[in-house]
Amino acid sequence: MRVRVPPPAPLLFFRKVLREGKIDSYMIKGRWIGEATMKIIHTPREMQKTAQQIRREGKTISFVPTMGCLHEGHLSLIQIAHEKAAVVAASIFVNPAQFGPNEDLEGYPRDFEHDEQLCRETGVDLLFYPTPENMYLEEHSVWVNEESLSNVLCGTSRPGHFRGVCTVVAKLLNIVLPDFMVLGEKDAQQLRVLRRMVRDLNFPVAVVSGPTVREADGLAMSSRNKYLSPAERAEAVCLFRALETARELFSAGERSADRIRGAMRAVIEKTSGRVDYIELVDNETLEPVQIMRKPVLAALAVRFSGARLIDNIVLQ
Amino acid sequence: MRVRVPPPAPLLFFRKVLREGKIDSYMIKGRWIGEATMKIIHTPREMQKTAQQIRREGKTISFVPTMGCLHEGHLSLIQIAHEKAAVVAASIFVNPAQFGPNEDLEGYPRDFEHDEQLCRETGVDLLFYPTPENMYLEEHSVWVNEESLSNVLCGTSRPGHFRGVCTVVAKLLNIVLPDFMVLGEKDAQQLRVLRRMVRDLNFPVAVVSGPTVREADGLAMSSRNKYLSPAERAEAVCLFRALETARELFSAGERSADRIRGAMRAVIEKTSGRVDYIELVDNETLEPVQIMRKPVLAALAVRFSGARLIDNIVLQ
Repeated sequence: MRVRVPPPAPLLFFRKVLREGKIDSYMIKGRWIGEATMKIIHTPREMQKTAQQIRREGKTISFVPTMGCLHEGHLSLIQIAHEKAAVVAASIFVNPAQFGPNEDLEGYPRDFEHDEQLCRETGVDLLFYPTPENMYLEEHSVWVNEESLSNVLCGTSRPGHFRGVCTVVAKLLNIVLPDFMVLGEKDAQQLRVLRRMVRDLNFPVAVVSGPTVREADGLAMSSRNKYLSPAERAEAVCLFRALETARELFSAGERSADRIRGAMRAVIEKTSGRVDYIELVDNETLEPVQIMRKPVLAALAVRFSGARLIDNIVLQ
Repeated sequence: MRVRVPPPAPLLFFRKVLREGKIDSYMIKGRWIGEATMKIIHTPREMQKTAQQIRREGKTISFVPTMGCLHEGHLSLIQIAHEKAAVVAASIFVNPAQFGPNEDLEGYPRDFEHDEQLCRETGVDLLFYPTPENMYLEEHSVWVNEESLSNVLCGTSRPGHFRGVCTVVAKLLNIVLPDFMVLGEKDAQQLRVLRRMVRDLNFPVAVVSGPTVREADGLAMSSRNKYLSPAERAEAVCLFRALETARELFSAGERSADRIRGAMRAVIEKTSGRVDYIELVDNETLEPVQIMRKPVLAALAVRFSGARLIDNIVLQ
């Protein structure tokens, strides 16, 4: 059975019934998804040529950069990408440059076959899957540095991380040549750093963000959730609970950042998680706030034995 | 009188007779030059939109970035640009980010009317002439760093210079969206640093270089030559003479970098110029060489009271 879906389509639902064999394929924007139309591209050169050809044909491209190990959070970004442009490109690249020497580059979860299947099912047109050697030539010596927003929150615990993120995304933008780049709000600081990079380096792309997708209990979806033991997985909802606590206090009129942070910390300290940071910062400049007058980003990072998790909400 | 010129046309000659009133306009690649077709664009946004429109029409763009105060060296790059693409864009922007705190940003020569005239006469289609405020927003915080080739030669005497160059050229590439960028070989290190940036960040542009244009006595053309007193102008040919000395020794079989550097230094030391550096480096990696087996870049910088001058040749 084939089903025509008017955009914006509930891709996640159709992906599910496609997988369950209830339908064979579905149509969105005149294209049948579920058929073997996705192109997998391995080299920057071929990806760039393909993108240039698509642009010459007058088509728009939207792009979802990922590190693979895709979950519903990524798929929701792919859905947004479909709504924005005619051609949807995604990349899967575990970027060595954004991992510190003591971080989890080697152990970072990888499952390309699963990712490929998900991309096919959600109608990705171009899947860019390069090797580290193709992305970073041996004598690579050029880096993109954001020097303001990168210096707080995760930038403190992960020196060099945002340099790696900015550099690889600058490269990906030049390779994929998208009109739209779709990023998740779960990585709140990354989103703001990359918006700044796009603005300050004048990349001809519009940055679009998608809301954090959560498990039933509220835990933000993340590839790193796989690292958690069952007991830690149960405790990991504490990040969401701490943010909910912040939201409740804020809604009740509390404007002292210290008091809200204190309440958040109390939530985390009931678990085995160790606080990496709990911060209330200006939503635009990421500077610490004391009294919350403008929109504030409440963000935290918590280390469990298996993984360091992050989450955030905007209070306004 | 109108004259049709087959490409590649000797633009400099036709510009001259145009100015002298011997002809009214000349045609190159189907377009009459000398007529009021050049568009001057002041904002990054309008420039980017214009470039996107040109690309949608399937036309190619070549781009000559300059700091203005144009001379025959720049015009020779514009001529190369004509040979490469349908649309020729040039920029005039004295980039504050590439000047050190004690350098000549304020005093750098500027003459927009003269530059505009030269661009019209050489058939530039788009002249991008932004303000510093439009190029660098108040909270600008993103920089492009080349961390290998930038650390020698001019990078030593001008800390931060190549960071400023890379950042502004990354911005200009994203604003002008050219297929070809034409750079002068006189700024040999800049050429190599920018080639590296284009390669490492995967910019979709081909870098083309044009040979150094010299005055009758051999002095490399430079906007900074204007700073020289008449006596210094006469002495300034010493850079070229030192390079000629290097070439003669190399041609005669000399392969010791030390001996060639010594002979070059002797040429400079006969003048009032003070050696900033005299280096023989690998033409690709810019690493110092002792015995010259592969192509070598001979480069020097000399300070006169009015200006610091640079020049170079490749020995192979």
